[in-house]
Amino acid sequence: MADMNDKIIEAFQFRHATKRFDATKKISEQDFTTILEVGRLSPSSLGLEPWKFLVIQNADLRNKLRDISWGAQGQLDTASHFVLALARKNVTSQSPYVQHIIRNIKQYAEETIPAVEKKYDDFQTNFHINDNERSLVDWASKQTYIALGNMMTSAALLGIDSCPIEGFDLDAVTELLKSENIIGADDFVPSYMVAFGYRETEPKAKTRQPQADVIEWFE
Amino acid sequence: MADMNDKIIEAFQFRHATKRFDATKKISEQDFTTILEVGRLSPSSLGLEPWKFLVIQNADLRNKLRDISWGAQGQLDTASHFVLALARKNVTSQSPYVQHIIRNIKQYAEETIPAVEKKYDDFQTNFHINDNERSLVDWASKQTYIALGNMMTSAALLGIDSCPIEGFDLDAVTELLKSENIIGADDFVPSYMVAFGYRETEPKAKTRQPQADVIEWFE
Repeated sequence: MADMNDKIIEAFQFRHATKRFDATKKISEQDFTTILEVGRLSPSSLGLEPWKFLVIQNADLRNKLRDISWGAQGQLDTASHFVLALARKNVTSQSPYVQHIIRNIKQYAEETIPAVEKKYDDFQTNFHINDNERSLVDWASKQTYIALGNMMTSAALLGIDSCPIEGFDLDAVTELLKSENIIGADDFVPSYMVAFGYRETEPKAKTRQPQADVIEWFE
Repeated sequence: MADMNDKIIEAFQFRHATKRFDATKKISEQDFTTILEVGRLSPSSLGLEPWKFLVIQNADLRNKLRDISWGAQGQLDTASHFVLALARKNVTSQSPYVQHIIRNIKQYAEETIPAVEKKYDDFQTNFHINDNERSLVDWASKQTYIALGNMMTSAALLGIDSCPIEGFDLDAVTELLKSENIIGADDFVPSYMVAFGYRETEPKAKTRQPQADVIEWFE
């Protein structure tokens, strides 16, 4: 698959954290549908999909975010499409959400459910997921970063630029989303933002550690 | 880009968590080089690349992992290539590692470094990253999940199957890696495992929540 190998590496060289986009260029509906679909179809631990993707196109909401997101200002002003990803809180076997996934989405047979719940509980203990409320939500947040990589890579394959953003006041954004009734007290927390569009200027060269510093073979 | 849209969605439909691989089939060197390169070139917060990718091909090491990784047994036995990803500990502005990235990889001019360090510190405070040692390593681990999504998606685009794995005894795997002198006391923690190869049997149908439950537009 020489051709696809080249296309993939080219996409990774093309992708960079775009600070400002060309505000006159809009991503086509077909391309952005693919990007969102890639988020939705991304894998997650136990297949629990502990996420939600908000597409923030409303100018008033973008402005409110802008004031509390120092790392997203150029992107909020210019991005064709702007996503705020949420991570779900309290993803434990007995939660209404996990029960919904087990019963209505995965549709496990009723008699198998106790074993599924025990598997989830044992796994969360062995992997130190539910040590505390913060570690539990950080685990859900990790899953949303799988979708983040996938959405940015798919965008790059389509010639679309992106920028992942953690540069915001987490407390203030959480409060804003609550005050706008976008999240409740106990359902979601902001995980990251990611902007999509077309670059305004060419980026500086990418820097990375050499392969020998990040990859080790045991043969 | 109708053709690439189709290729991307096909890859996401193709990908599933492969429990057992056809042990007779090996991934070509070219394809696996692409998968690792995609990990290395993945974006990370502040560009700090807080990761390392171990490629575990050694049968003895795979067997030792097998005993303490209930969710990876079929994959350790059959995967063409098996990766254990590490997340870096103590990624703060004054750490030797971050100093190395700032000075040797990103090559910031000496006079700009105090401002860069302050930016990193302020960011980690605003985003509640360094609230405690665990939250700091979970943040590094989140970055490794970007690479995870990218490696699995690139594999799928190349017709290669994969399985992401958190199903292991985190304490026991940490101890094993220490006893084998693969990690030290204070540098890395295991983040996840991911196996690559070619499926033995066809998977069951993928389940996901509908778009309306995970995507919300604000226009």
